[in-house]
Amino acid sequence: MTPEEFRRAGHELIDWIADHRTRVPDLPVAAQVRPGEVSAALPRTAPEHPEPFADVLADLDRVVVPGVTQTQSPGFYGWFPSNASLASVLGDIASGGVGALGITWQSAPALTEVEQVVTDWLRDLCGLSTQWRGAIQDTASTGCLVAMLAARERASGGSEHGGGLQALEAPLVVYTSPEAHSSVAKAALLAGFGADNLRYVEVDPVTRAMDPGALRQAMADDVAVGRVPAMVVAAVGTTGTTAMDPVPEIVAVAREHGAWVHVDAAMAGSAMLLPEMRHLFAGVDDADSLAWNPHKWMGTILDTSLLYVRDVDHLVSVMSTTPSYLCASTDAEVVQYKDWGIPLGRRFRALKLWFHLRLDGVEAIRERLRRDLDNARWLAAQVEAEPGWRVLAPVPLQTVCVVHEPPGLTGDALDAHTLAWVDAVNAGGRAYLGASRLDGRWMVRVSVGAEATERPDVAALWDLLRTTTARLAADGGATGRPGTVMS
Amino acid sequence: MTPEEFRRAGHELIDWIADHRTRVPDLPVAAQVRPGEVSAALPRTAPEHPEPFADVLADLDRVVVPGVTQTQSPGFYGWFPSNASLASVLGDIASGGVGALGITWQSAPALTEVEQVVTDWLRDLCGLSTQWRGAIQDTASTGCLVAMLAARERASGGSEHGGGLQALEAPLVVYTSPEAHSSVAKAALLAGFGADNLRYVEVDPVTRAMDPGALRQAMADDVAVGRVPAMVVAAVGTTGTTAMDPVPEIVAVAREHGAWVHVDAAMAGSAMLLPEMRHLFAGVDDADSLAWNPHKWMGTILDTSLLYVRDVDHLVSVMSTTPSYLCASTDAEVVQYKDWGIPLGRRFRALKLWFHLRLDGVEAIRERLRRDLDNARWLAAQVEAEPGWRVLAPVPLQTVCVVHEPPGLTGDALDAHTLAWVDAVNAGGRAYLGASRLDGRWMVRVSVGAEATERPDVAALWDLLRTTTARLAADGGATGRPGTVMS
Repeated sequence: MTPEEFRRAGHELIDWIADHRTRVPDLPVAAQVRPGEVSAALPRTAPEHPEPFADVLADLDRVVVPGVTQTQSPGFYGWFPSNASLASVLGDIASGGVGALGITWQSAPALTEVEQVVTDWLRDLCGLSTQWRGAIQDTASTGCLVAMLAARERASGGSEHGGGLQALEAPLVVYTSPEAHSSVAKAALLAGFGADNLRYVEVDPVTRAMDPGALRQAMADDVAVGRVPAMVVAAVGTTGTTAMDPVPEIVAVAREHGAWVHVDAAMAGSAMLLPEMRHLFAGVDDADSLAWNPHKWMGTILDTSLLYVRDVDHLVSVMSTTPSYLCASTDAEVVQYKDWGIPLGRRFRALKLWFHLRLDGVEAIRERLRRDLDNARWLAAQVEAEPGWRVLAPVPLQTVCVVHEPPGLTGDALDAHTLAWVDAVNAGGRAYLGASRLDGRWMVRVSVGAEATERPDVAALWDLLRTTTARLAADGGATGRPGTVMS
Repeated sequence: MTPEEFRRAGHELIDWIADHRTRVPDLPVAAQVRPGEVSAALPRTAPEHPEPFADVLADLDRVVVPGVTQTQSPGFYGWFPSNASLASVLGDIASGGVGALGITWQSAPALTEVEQVVTDWLRDLCGLSTQWRGAIQDTASTGCLVAMLAARERASGGSEHGGGLQALEAPLVVYTSPEAHSSVAKAALLAGFGADNLRYVEVDPVTRAMDPGALRQAMADDVAVGRVPAMVVAAVGTTGTTAMDPVPEIVAVAREHGAWVHVDAAMAGSAMLLPEMRHLFAGVDDADSLAWNPHKWMGTILDTSLLYVRDVDHLVSVMSTTPSYLCASTDAEVVQYKDWGIPLGRRFRALKLWFHLRLDGVEAIRERLRRDLDNARWLAAQVEAEPGWRVLAPVPLQTVCVVHEPPGLTGDALDAHTLAWVDAVNAGGRAYLGASRLDGRWMVRVSVGAEATERPDVAALWDLLRTTTARLAADGGATGRPGTVMS
């Protein structure tokens, strides 16, 4: 494709994107297809000859759009927000247009240094101390694994350069809470610790935050039988209920054993842009690593996950490999991001953050976050005030965990009712919610914070929840049909 | 930013990209900045208020473009090609425009199923058997780590679900060649095997391919002292010289011990689109995993790395974690790509491949690859025929490893000369080459295959190499100034 052909097609595509964003509010929020439906709509073999751009563009509407959940819709309340601000989309487009290859500083100095600058900007905006240095990872799952490898190597005195985990005499142990994101257990398994060496520390039954006393006891129990506490993963904002683990107390306990503390603030990091929310980050400056995802609530399009560490030299000692064809005389003066993570090559992802922050400005982003916090508090207050409804967990951020309890319904019958109404809401196409288990029972998470969601949208959702549950109750309760979610 | 603001800015950005691509051939190929120069050009704090789009766009020219090596230039012969075909750039733009979140099939069925379809297309185009299933990873480094984790778990009977590597009695060992990509050693260290359990098997001194006899002996030696051969990483096209490890023999040896065979075809995979090159893939169908990067020579913009495996169920058993909020009733019928790699969330990267293959068509891609193979053979023939020049390794693909040996220069003096002339070429701005060590001495890799590189460009490069080396020889040899590369 020539630049002129690209120019013509590119203009059409920009118009398609602008038009698509305009009509997203009118689209069903949940994807509308059955398993296999998308692949059945595509040919079995690749095209030998060029196809017209119009055909490809038409397939975006025919095949792709009905096949994705509209996370940019004002009716999207699933999982966590996955905002793709149009300013950051422009940055992503620029990244493709520049076409750089980030394997070393030398291959693309600007790719490296813009990343250094914007990660410093965001660190400072969050009120973190200047001892932190950041890099962009694809997701917080990868960031957690990288942090865990750094912790493993600190606790084992650099075992990877000798016999690895296979040569250790005293097993290393990782601690987290049962409310931690699934990526913590995944990272512990992938890093080689083994499930037997992963401890789920008790949480407070009300706040669902890790109990530091229980952490201290768990570590003492392990030490007593010859194991070594290597790491604690604390969540500032868990995935289920946005619970806040007490970082200062956790850091204090971990220090007694020299254990690494990783803070998962994938969702809550964005709230730290607001000075009035910074109290939730108390103690974080004393941790060892920190993950937060501007690609969630802040709205820099996926994939933009930040991993900050305090001891860069240690991280680099764990991750670096430098073959001769990647050596350069300027190595001592520059950052080599290949040594801050798993992949060698990287895209120019910093442009997404650079464009987003510059084109929207921080103040507008803060105002949007405040709007969402306010909307979540408003919704929680409505739910609390409504007979038959309950808010199941504190609402420190923008996610409200709710349950509707019709008189007499408990246990499995209540679970069936919960799944039935969340299914009915999602099938209706006007909103998308997620169900999740809490203390062994299903609840519904309303995660406010799509960029497009305003107060009238939240009010309409609340109406929808009440009318849907009332209708189901009138119909005689749960329908038993296959649900969006199941155990 | 509203859709209408995006529309206006997007059109400007598309024009910028088309204009930029048009003038890339006139830009210096190597980045033109010193360490710290880019960051010094940027403010220390993030902007509180929106900046005009024109300012951001101007900064692409002012700050970004001079700060990246122009991998899209016809004069780019560094590392390996890193093509960003404009058709695939359109696919990348579409991905941002759709704004989907790929965490489960249910979150974006089209994201999953288009990825299944295009990875099947590419498998079939390469002549691989239909038993392979593919997923997009960011890079082959990550793909190698994922494969190594799968190998570790097969060899250890699923140790991650018990005590991990920490509980194994017999250490697991990984085998590769000293010519393997640095990511192989990195993966072995990160996966916890430890450097002591990584063996570099001897290569043939001429072909630089792994010696299967030496592999058999290395495995026997380990088994004799109670170790377990877990994996062999074979390269079909090494990074240094594109050497071809003998996969059929390696698979046969590995099978004797039940060891996993991972094939790194990051660069060479693209050649398999050409039926006449398929002989290089002999035996690959019997391996366990395979990585190749369409984001190199084929030209689907970074990051588009494919990892194929034959035993998907095993891979999923190693990588899967499914918390309640990600469960769905359709789980049994669909692919969950979160269980094929490290990150939970994924971008809609399949659109890059889909657009690229559809808008360019496979036949045009094949013609370009044939052109590059032909250009590399032509250059190798010129070098071979020229007194004082040598081709140092076979040229099975598109990379020519050369050295210029003026009469009387050997050892360190020859190394200094090599680094001096490659530096001089790179400093001139008309071409970019990489230096690399081979048998302890510096050589120069001319990696043909930028999308824009035609025969006259290669001929001009060959003139440039001869005039540059002649000038340096006339000036009295190596200058001793700080080089682009150093040991």
